[in-house]
Amino acid sequence: MAPEKGEKAAAGGKQAANKNVTVPVSLNGISVSKEVNFSQWYQEVVTKCELVEYYNEISGFYILRPASMFIWGEIRDWFSERTKAMGVEETSFPLFLSATSLEKEKAHVEGFAPELAWVTKAGDKDLEVPVAVRPTSEAVMYPYYAKWIRSHRDLPLKLQQWCSVVRWEAKQTTPFLRAREFLWQEGHTAHLTEQLAEKEVLEILELYAGVYEQLLAVPVVRGKKTENEKFAGGYWTSTCEGFIPTNGRGIQGATSHALGQNFSKMFDITVEDPNKKGEHLNVWQNSWGLSTRVIGVMVMIHGDDKGLVLPPRVARIQVVVIPVGITAKTKPEVRENLTEKVNELAAALKGSKIRTEVDERDGYTPGFKFADWEMKGVPLRLEFGPKDAEKQVVSYARRDNGEKGTIPLAEVATQVPVLLEQIQKDMYDKAEKSFSSHRLVLNEWEKVVPSLNSKNVVIIPFCEEPKCEDEIKDKTKSDEVEIGPDGKPQPSMGMKSLCIPFEQPEGLVPGETKCLNPSCGRNAKSWVMFGRSY
Amino acid sequence: MAPEKGEKAAAGGKQAANKNVTVPVSLNGISVSKEVNFSQWYQEVVTKCELVEYYNEISGFYILRPASMFIWGEIRDWFSERTKAMGVEETSFPLFLSATSLEKEKAHVEGFAPELAWVTKAGDKDLEVPVAVRPTSEAVMYPYYAKWIRSHRDLPLKLQQWCSVVRWEAKQTTPFLRAREFLWQEGHTAHLTEQLAEKEVLEILELYAGVYEQLLAVPVVRGKKTENEKFAGGYWTSTCEGFIPTNGRGIQGATSHALGQNFSKMFDITVEDPNKKGEHLNVWQNSWGLSTRVIGVMVMIHGDDKGLVLPPRVARIQVVVIPVGITAKTKPEVRENLTEKVNELAAALKGSKIRTEVDERDGYTPGFKFADWEMKGVPLRLEFGPKDAEKQVVSYARRDNGEKGTIPLAEVATQVPVLLEQIQKDMYDKAEKSFSSHRLVLNEWEKVVPSLNSKNVVIIPFCEEPKCEDEIKDKTKSDEVEIGPDGKPQPSMGMKSLCIPFEQPEGLVPGETKCLNPSCGRNAKSWVMFGRSY
Repeated sequence: MAPEKGEKAAAGGKQAANKNVTVPVSLNGISVSKEVNFSQWYQEVVTKCELVEYYNEISGFYILRPASMFIWGEIRDWFSERTKAMGVEETSFPLFLSATSLEKEKAHVEGFAPELAWVTKAGDKDLEVPVAVRPTSEAVMYPYYAKWIRSHRDLPLKLQQWCSVVRWEAKQTTPFLRAREFLWQEGHTAHLTEQLAEKEVLEILELYAGVYEQLLAVPVVRGKKTENEKFAGGYWTSTCEGFIPTNGRGIQGATSHALGQNFSKMFDITVEDPNKKGEHLNVWQNSWGLSTRVIGVMVMIHGDDKGLVLPPRVARIQVVVIPVGITAKTKPEVRENLTEKVNELAAALKGSKIRTEVDERDGYTPGFKFADWEMKGVPLRLEFGPKDAEKQVVSYARRDNGEKGTIPLAEVATQVPVLLEQIQKDMYDKAEKSFSSHRLVLNEWEKVVPSLNSKNVVIIPFCEEPKCEDEIKDKTKSDEVEIGPDGKPQPSMGMKSLCIPFEQPEGLVPGETKCLNPSCGRNAKSWVMFGRSY
Repeated sequence: MAPEKGEKAAAGGKQAANKNVTVPVSLNGISVSKEVNFSQWYQEVVTKCELVEYYNEISGFYILRPASMFIWGEIRDWFSERTKAMGVEETSFPLFLSATSLEKEKAHVEGFAPELAWVTKAGDKDLEVPVAVRPTSEAVMYPYYAKWIRSHRDLPLKLQQWCSVVRWEAKQTTPFLRAREFLWQEGHTAHLTEQLAEKEVLEILELYAGVYEQLLAVPVVRGKKTENEKFAGGYWTSTCEGFIPTNGRGIQGATSHALGQNFSKMFDITVEDPNKKGEHLNVWQNSWGLSTRVIGVMVMIHGDDKGLVLPPRVARIQVVVIPVGITAKTKPEVRENLTEKVNELAAALKGSKIRTEVDERDGYTPGFKFADWEMKGVPLRLEFGPKDAEKQVVSYARRDNGEKGTIPLAEVATQVPVLLEQIQKDMYDKAEKSFSSHRLVLNEWEKVVPSLNSKNVVIIPFCEEPKCEDEIKDKTKSDEVEIGPDGKPQPSMGMKSLCIPFEQPEGLVPGETKCLNPSCGRNAKSWVMFGRSY
């Protein structure tokens, strides 16, 4: 079904669909260069490659089409399998929060308040108490954690749900990266001790990093958020941070929060201390979430001027087989023989569990088909024509680097899976090389803004003080104009802290190295990664 | 984790959790008999067996706990695998419909209007145009079908989404059966011809019947809805209908609708006719949905006075292993040996992919544990004590029929899977026997109401006229009092048509057999199943 749906947008009109008639068709490809107008490029790629459709009825909402839901499904399967092994079970809490219960948790809710969508009517009747659509589920779930957790033997309690949440953003929205509704998984767990809770925070962070690195071929830096950037209601936040080379911006990948006892105190979630009879203790909680944002990050990092470039492990179509070398003069028996061989080839690939599509559309030249599937990001193209048949080979072209070659027909079922894994690895390595070469460890303040302007993120000695962080943000604003996410020019934003990397560079001497902010004067506590960011 | 969470409710207090102390605990079991007070029985089973938790904050909403989400997950996997093979792809459309777009489709929306939840505010600002939470997605999706379907080669378009929908019911709500928010899958497809569309309607119906029969061990009758009961906007509706023996009511299982061209005309979804160049035709559409209601039907049919009875194929825990025969006098080495054997046993079962739990809780008697797991519906209990060890056997007890026996230890890994499949089959057969013996084919009007009062559904010759159906409903109201879903007495409702079974009884002579309604006088068109229903 996929190629049929693809074709229409590519063909640009109904007349192209007329079977058995060779009509000239031109690809409605990506019209701008990624480097020249990144935001328009992104918008074209996500729509023309059929990842999303803009929802015209309500701004800030997007339809996720099969090409993106496939990726999300692969992520869900991968992550669910691993969290299940950790003892995490699935749950489904209601979509709504009542205004009354929200009032009790004002501190937590404050941050979300401006973005809450309020249901005030059902049918034509006003609700007695309005209800808000969940922006996240702490306040929905934790009253029940208090009910369900009655003994230390009810711990750990590990639940997650896959659902959508609504945050009615006032800011400019962007598909995947900032939408008023998005899909995510949210995990909420409770533990007896701080140590057990923190162990899980990092296990989950490692799974999030795995989603990026192993599935999406996107390198991330693992670390801890500063006070300014952590989840407001929590104790500390771990994060994996990505990097978009095209504009040099950092982007938060996914976060796993140690909530400490803040929420268990707010919601009165306690158990009797198993070591001190009669005494009660508040449980230690975590929450962690990964959203469809990951897809946007993947698109931005791997895509090129031809369109999408998909890592093989999450590509709905991993290999497209295109018959070539057929002309009006080709004899029917040659044509039939080719069709048969192509189907054998596809069957062999499917036998090796390779997601394979054969493009047998009439009325389109091989060149058109090549460009169409390149735009859609299919990792590997196989071409098969009479000449290949003679030589008992199939020709291939890699989407990621354009490399071409041939594979003996007899080895297709074994060679193609190897080649796909090689593509996966090469895509990761390329992105990793790019990120590591744009992550500059700096000891001189003067180099900071020029480094940002040259599309880098920086790692600098920092005191970790919130006020100093605000100052740094302010000082690093630049008059240099950049294109904003809305496509309009704007002055460059200041940098904010992305994370305190767990893997610290060398050279920071405790009690000696100063915070890099020249007007600070405090000692540096750690190397902190800063950058302009999404 | 499951048994730990289970224990708390069962133990009824925190003191019970104190390890290594044998404390008397009493099971907080099901307090009423299924036959005596069905609605209270149901409410206790779904909550005490931890399928749902009532959401106190907003009435009519329920939290789906891991025990029910596991079942839903199994259904999702089973159904997704099969629909994927049919070429159905996953999508995710927004949660909201704008008031403006709703106005365009007034006819379709009318039925849902009283139950729409309206978002009128975001943060503290009124929305310019209110948006409604989707009650179903025809009006959300089909404008995009019009955009995406531009040629007959874009057909078939087959999409489905797994999501929640909101219908703000004014009626009494019941967990799973009637909730203001529920989970479902909704499929929406478009086809070139009526024939292709109708073929799919029935394929999907067969999958729905498969969910009931093969996974949930619930027999259903396949058929077509009458005009009165079909999906309002559609052409015709196919359905699978279940039966609750305890109150003799029918219950709609799931429906698959042939929408015909009604929506494609409303939303202008057309393609050029491949057989008549230049002419356009409206596509043929289907929609089909299966919701978490299935879980409620399963609970009602299989449960008994001890609590839940789960069919093995969807049970999160299929087998619980309980060490027995240990007293204060048991020697430590005997005890240790038993623990070791029990773990070996569990490992062997897990090796055969049996979802196994070992209940090693201290402070609980085997009798307490038996009752606890019986309440939770675990299909098979294995008991293992010193005497079993001597004889190299394990004792078992089936949840469905109480049957007990022994299995040689060496054969556990092979015998248990066979036994579980036998339980699955026996549960289905029992329910099927019950349904078929309460589905009375009647030729005399006088027998109708007494049959209903004796907890049957009836199959009668019927003219299929909507007005006659209304009349029948009215005539079959009974003064006999029954307990309503709210637990209060109420007069019995009249019967409505459940379906026109595809499998028709014999004996209806076209042009001769009259409609059974004595004041009708028209000829009967078919045998139609009627009943009091949910």
